[in-house]
Amino acid sequence: MNFSSKLITDAVDAFSQLPGIGKKSALRMVLHLLKQEENMVSQFTNSIQDMRMNIKFCNECFNVSDHDLCGICVQSSRRASSICLVESIREVIAIESTQQYNGLYHVLGGLISPLDGIGPSDLRINELVKRVEENDTQELIVALSPTLEGDTTTYYISKQIDPTIKITTLSRGVAFGGELEYADEMTLAKSLENRVPITQVVKNDD
Amino acid sequence: MNFSSKLITDAVDAFSQLPGIGKKSALRMVLHLLKQEENMVSQFTNSIQDMRMNIKFCNECFNVSDHDLCGICVQSSRRASSICLVESIREVIAIESTQQYNGLYHVLGGLISPLDGIGPSDLRINELVKRVEENDTQELIVALSPTLEGDTTTYYISKQIDPTIKITTLSRGVAFGGELEYADEMTLAKSLENRVPITQVVKNDD
Repeated sequence: MNFSSKLITDAVDAFSQLPGIGKKSALRMVLHLLKQEENMVSQFTNSIQDMRMNIKFCNECFNVSDHDLCGICVQSSRRASSICLVESIREVIAIESTQQYNGLYHVLGGLISPLDGIGPSDLRINELVKRVEENDTQELIVALSPTLEGDTTTYYISKQIDPTIKITTLSRGVAFGGELEYADEMTLAKSLENRVPITQVVKNDD
Repeated sequence: MNFSSKLITDAVDAFSQLPGIGKKSALRMVLHLLKQEENMVSQFTNSIQDMRMNIKFCNECFNVSDHDLCGICVQSSRRASSICLVESIREVIAIESTQQYNGLYHVLGGLISPLDGIGPSDLRINELVKRVEENDTQELIVALSPTLEGDTTTYYISKQIDPTIKITTLSRGVAFGGELEYADEMTLAKSLENRVPITQVVKNDD
């Protein structure tokens, strides 16, 4: 596409670097901003600039934060005896939006992946081990993706943690509301293997 | 969604003001920028800021431009005797990408729409009339949307222009590659009414 202006071309190129944005959507955004007042556009770019320059990571759990401790770690109502281990802040947001978890988090910063050159020392595993030991942690919930890398990381970490601490992981099986025929074979086979007594399902739904 | 950081929340809000972007896509963009180097993010915001602050509009055709005249008006290879009237720069880009038009443009800046309080004086109609008169324009191609507002504007402008100048508009009918059964009734009825000899279709396709 020829935008007959280098300024427009540069702005479209900037937007189309974002995930999921092609040239057409980028142009739509640029034309939208072109119609806005100059101070609205300054506000837009400043909030992005501010976010990148001033963001901090929580000293405890490595979640994003505006201060030294994140909004979750400072809440005294949270159960400090439970730590949920997640890959990134994306999962913190996902679990928080279920409103079902009242403990703390630990953001690992990735998964062990030899193919991508990511080893245990690149992740915040030592910080986790230290945190679990120093605080009176009773349960570590490992909420990593059910992939090869996730399972490798889960296994590695489970070997580092004091064996007296209860380590759990998310249950796996067919998704709620999903139709059985569309579940992948692996999931269906595993959920058949790990079948649970019907009384437990009914009890959990209460 | 609770992002446990005001900086993240503000940046997500900024992105979700853009057309077609919801909170989830906005978060994806923010997390993407969070992973980039600081100077990459500065480059991103600067190119948007620059675009808004420094953009100019062509003195001749009102297309966006980096200088007093746009990239299309300065091309001496363009046929200056033909002016294509469009609503906005969006249509300039669309027509340019067909690579079928070699004349100049005139960006009207909207359509006459009494309901929205847009009258002829809000548009660049006087500039068009003056331009057509002063230059040796032979054809004015009115390429406005085939809507009520577009047709009203086309009619109004056709009355303002020197009647010795040839005024044409885009042909209307069923779209290429579209299936007849999915064409709307109005389009189908009009394209039946305005049917053309088959020799003309074959000739045009050559």
